[in-house]
Amino acid sequence: MEVIQTIQELRSQLSPRREQGRTIGFVPTMGYLHEGHRSLLERAREQSDVVVLSIFVNPLQFGPTEDFSRYPRDTQRDLAIADAAGADLVFLPSVAEMYPTHPPRTTVTVNGPVTSILDAVSRPGHFDGVATVVSKLFHIVEPDFAYFGMKDAQQVAVIRQMVDDLNFRVTIVPCPTVREEDGLAKSSRNVYLSAEERAQAVVLSQALRLAQDYVNNSKDAIDIAGLKQLIASHIRTAPLAVIDYAEAVTFPGFEPVDSWSPNGGSDLIVALAVKFGATRLIDNTIIPRKV
Amino acid sequence: MEVIQTIQELRSQLSPRREQGRTIGFVPTMGYLHEGHRSLLERAREQSDVVVLSIFVNPLQFGPTEDFSRYPRDTQRDLAIADAAGADLVFLPSVAEMYPTHPPRTTVTVNGPVTSILDAVSRPGHFDGVATVVSKLFHIVEPDFAYFGMKDAQQVAVIRQMVDDLNFRVTIVPCPTVREEDGLAKSSRNVYLSAEERAQAVVLSQALRLAQDYVNNSKDAIDIAGLKQLIASHIRTAPLAVIDYAEAVTFPGFEPVDSWSPNGGSDLIVALAVKFGATRLIDNTIIPRKV
Repeated sequence: MEVIQTIQELRSQLSPRREQGRTIGFVPTMGYLHEGHRSLLERAREQSDVVVLSIFVNPLQFGPTEDFSRYPRDTQRDLAIADAAGADLVFLPSVAEMYPTHPPRTTVTVNGPVTSILDAVSRPGHFDGVATVVSKLFHIVEPDFAYFGMKDAQQVAVIRQMVDDLNFRVTIVPCPTVREEDGLAKSSRNVYLSAEERAQAVVLSQALRLAQDYVNNSKDAIDIAGLKQLIASHIRTAPLAVIDYAEAVTFPGFEPVDSWSPNGGSDLIVALAVKFGATRLIDNTIIPRKV
Repeated sequence: MEVIQTIQELRSQLSPRREQGRTIGFVPTMGYLHEGHRSLLERAREQSDVVVLSIFVNPLQFGPTEDFSRYPRDTQRDLAIADAAGADLVFLPSVAEMYPTHPPRTTVTVNGPVTSILDAVSRPGHFDGVATVVSKLFHIVEPDFAYFGMKDAQQVAVIRQMVDDLNFRVTIVPCPTVREEDGLAKSSRNVYLSAEERAQAVVLSQALRLAQDYVNNSKDAIDIAGLKQLIASHIRTAPLAVIDYAEAVTFPGFEPVDSWSPNGGSDLIVALAVKFGATRLIDNTIIPRKV
């Protein structure tokens, strides 16, 4: 496994492999790798000839009051995990390497329903920052496949729309959320939680399970307001939980609906953002329509 | 020469050639080809193994009061010119093929001095439309080289900045402006001019020549206000000419300056936009610093 810090060096490593006809699988991350990232790397290892991992905490996708400076970093541990999971190349650029002018002068903006709701509202500018850095990384790596975790389902939808709209050649491969034994979705930000917060954070995945059961037990169309109330009530059983949003919208369109039926035209995503102190956790589940 | 109307078909034509290690040269145009476009194709033919021409009148780069619907089109003539100049593939997509959702949901925006002046002010949204369509075309064609005419010097600067900022792998090749015998820069829009307007349009290139002479004959730093006055006075000798702008700024930075010296840090671009009736012509010349 090679660790590379400059765009030029990464390109010169990838170019001969591409010319040999080898496929490139790409896992973009912000580091502090966990089982979720490992599953992305393993999927890439199965599907692609060359596996590229990037580790870059992208300042552009953090708001001014968010956790950019304290975002957890542990490069040595990350490299050991990447090596064990079969990464071939690790791209570890500096902020100056990625953004010689900061803030960057050229940006990519994704508009539409998917960026009018949920994290797009709670975190203004976040998805522009994601779209811009992912565009740059796609141009640098030129992957055949890129792997993203479905814990960030809205991010996956934004990136898929960008890829479609701007005709990137890459195929986006969404991968299932990986969870702790009690159901908490794996996240680099879980390390922020106190013991008490960590224990209570289980309400997110519990609320999603409740939503699934509620839908499965309903014979009629689901009243979305009622579904949201059910979820919110359960989250509020955790005294330290502060709900940012608890929503249910169409998937992958991210359009609000008043009611939803499994016999209708689209899947439903139940999406949560909940704060424990300064730590903001997100999670979601997708409830498929009957096909 | 093959004429191709869909993105999928173009990709399937280009992919095997790329795998054989052949370089791809790309000439993006809005059609109604003239000697300027021909010179781009010839340059591409010299430098690249596969020459791709695109013809697409991009609605996104026209303002609501501009000439999108009446922009001149003559596909049969264009194809004959392209064939004679050695194009291998001509990409001729419909608006629906390029923008399945219109207006498009994902856009590329280039900020900074280069998009704060001249055509960026006269044509709001124009360069966002250019950046977005060129991004799409670069993703579809994946060229090694892309050829642009320096008549649109500001466009070249915008695209170069976009390529740098977003790390596109393509090399931008600027090519010299091609002129009529009397000096008028070749442009698809020249066809709009009446005989009287056509005769008077020579003042643009004459004014640029005057600017060059003025600088060459100056021993001291040039007062930019004086230079602009000189140019404007000459353009106003044409009774039908209405000046949109007559500016001199740094190149390639496009930053306004009060005075300029050939011994200073940057080149100078003298840039004109002049209307004759509803027809808007642009032209420019770059005055190099002494190196």
